[in-house]
Amino acid sequence: MTTPEVQFVPGLAGVVAAKSSISDIDGQKGILKYRGYAIQELAEKSTFEESAYLIMNGELPTKQQLGKFDSDLKRNRNVDPRLLDIIKAFPKSGHPMSALQAAVAAMGMLYPRKIDDDATNDAAGLRLIAQTATIIAAFDRLRKGKEVVPPRDDLSHAANFLYMINGEVPSETAAMVFDVCLVLHIEHSQNASTFTAMVTGSTTADPYSTMASAIGSLSGPLHGGANERVLAMLNEIGSPDKAKAAIECKIEKKELIMGMGHREYKTMDPRATILKGLNETVFQKLGRSPLFDIALEAEKVVIDRLGARGIWPNVDFYSGIVYDKLGIEVDLFTPVFAIPRMAGWVAHWREQIADNRIFRPSQIFVGSGDRKYTPIEKRG
Amino acid sequence: MTTPEVQFVPGLAGVVAAKSSISDIDGQKGILKYRGYAIQELAEKSTFEESAYLIMNGELPTKQQLGKFDSDLKRNRNVDPRLLDIIKAFPKSGHPMSALQAAVAAMGMLYPRKIDDDATNDAAGLRLIAQTATIIAAFDRLRKGKEVVPPRDDLSHAANFLYMINGEVPSETAAMVFDVCLVLHIEHSQNASTFTAMVTGSTTADPYSTMASAIGSLSGPLHGGANERVLAMLNEIGSPDKAKAAIECKIEKKELIMGMGHREYKTMDPRATILKGLNETVFQKLGRSPLFDIALEAEKVVIDRLGARGIWPNVDFYSGIVYDKLGIEVDLFTPVFAIPRMAGWVAHWREQIADNRIFRPSQIFVGSGDRKYTPIEKRG
Repeated sequence: MTTPEVQFVPGLAGVVAAKSSISDIDGQKGILKYRGYAIQELAEKSTFEESAYLIMNGELPTKQQLGKFDSDLKRNRNVDPRLLDIIKAFPKSGHPMSALQAAVAAMGMLYPRKIDDDATNDAAGLRLIAQTATIIAAFDRLRKGKEVVPPRDDLSHAANFLYMINGEVPSETAAMVFDVCLVLHIEHSQNASTFTAMVTGSTTADPYSTMASAIGSLSGPLHGGANERVLAMLNEIGSPDKAKAAIECKIEKKELIMGMGHREYKTMDPRATILKGLNETVFQKLGRSPLFDIALEAEKVVIDRLGARGIWPNVDFYSGIVYDKLGIEVDLFTPVFAIPRMAGWVAHWREQIADNRIFRPSQIFVGSGDRKYTPIEKRG
Repeated sequence: MTTPEVQFVPGLAGVVAAKSSISDIDGQKGILKYRGYAIQELAEKSTFEESAYLIMNGELPTKQQLGKFDSDLKRNRNVDPRLLDIIKAFPKSGHPMSALQAAVAAMGMLYPRKIDDDATNDAAGLRLIAQTATIIAAFDRLRKGKEVVPPRDDLSHAANFLYMINGEVPSETAAMVFDVCLVLHIEHSQNASTFTAMVTGSTTADPYSTMASAIGSLSGPLHGGANERVLAMLNEIGSPDKAKAAIECKIEKKELIMGMGHREYKTMDPRATILKGLNETVFQKLGRSPLFDIALEAEKVVIDRLGARGIWPNVDFYSGIVYDKLGIEVDLFTPVFAIPRMAGWVAHWREQIADNRIFRPSQIFVGSGDRKYTPIEKRG
């Protein structure tokens, strides 16, 4: 009988790390559901606030529950002045993803580090979700030598973020489109950053340390960092007529094509389909992005050449083009991913600690057998 | 046939997450080896610098290699003035473990974030190992309203840390004892923080983000945070004659006894044995700690009552008493764990990215089946 002890599966692909009731993916059919609701329906009919509530609580909120959740989030948007001082000390040239990780870790110095009661954990979850957006916007303003724009409590989470980075209330289209982006990025089962939140959370670390760890994983180019790289790739290709040759060249060289392929999906990532449609919506109002036409060409080549092998566009492929059109800086794309994903991380962290066992996997040792220490004079 | 897909093992206990040549544990016999060398021999004959070199490079260094490694570490001890400014902005009441996580994350804003060449990765590894000690000491001095003590390059890593926190060159005994503590804590295979470094590292995140994630996991009370809690427990017990009843009461109530039991060891953790002996060495020079006698009594009860079930003292049980005697504050115990462990994390990170696949495990979905979205007016 094959036992897990003797099997090594790189990246733990297919290895069960949790029982979870938060989201479900059917990668063959390209289906993603949050708590049983199809992502398409939530993208169309829900808001970030409502879907975040759903992910964290398991049910869609009543009007009253949503009102309370929304006002709790708004009340938590302002960061502690001491946190703002820390952010002010960050070097302006730093990557905002490192700034976010450092700032969230620093929150652990300001709030209770215990995790043994629901009220403290509820408060921490709200604070983390609310303030991720504020931290990112504050750092972005400061590095540009501009004044920090304090959050407004008459704006949605999506509109408020765009307001805090630009200093102007966004158009209805921009706010709506960005809200859909937030909904799409809340949750995606056992991805590397969520898994990191579970592993760190399993040590009963405080929520700030735990989420700072998750942010570290999201920053990686093979994970959340990919959306930033997609835009660099599209810009490098330069024009739609050059896309075919450029992508084919990458395929020949077996280079990674950013935004293409996903461990879970063997067909089009449903979020990519929605984002592709969203781009059309944005363009009707704000003008077409030339990058979108490059992306469409690149997609054709990839599906044609690699689709049969299960390589299709993923969520990162079309998100950057939307963000770019909304006036979000390229190096903010990955931090922006963290804004909604924080709700998913918090949900998994709570699920983990509710029935906890510390993660400590095993290894196959492939190194030296017994060796005797030799004094340094006798080495060489 | 049982396949890993359908098995769920909480905490991934016994599930292979890596092939590794760094360290090896025989938990039945209580054996720990770094690269084939027994921990007892390294504790007795080696130094932190030599053992860290061994862990990272696979071989004990020649005299020349050790000299270079040692001077490289010394050269890297000073933190960037901008990092010091960030640390100065941290609230004095913050936990130093959160300070360390935030500061290491902030290093990602100061140094190259790429991980695609060995020279950059070597430099990052040295910098992280050297500066972890400096960051902790700087924060500790600042929170006490004292001047930061710059590192000295005529002291060993162990002696220099004690010098930076106390402002005085430590006695030979203190430096030697602390050096042994560092050797013992360098590496321990797939523990939660090392596993976190591997998971975050597998996203090809930069080394600073990666190590900040690992620090998040080490901070947890079920992991590195345990040593701090052991001391609290011993202090709470108060005197050796009360130890038996106090521990028996905890056993009755099925409470966790901090510093006791380990997933890997079913007998005495060899590091605990060495630390127990080290305490005797310290006491001969610096006077006996009453906490040690409480610990000895507590150990007797635990081994007597739970030893047959595999619950024995682990590394955390005796380390805190040594640190306390060396004048290290209780809330620095876990940060102090990170000083040597950084070398282990760096070794596993390099091993991971040398043959990388991103970690993305699977899950068993136990939530709702298909649900249709109901407009908010119709909920309740």
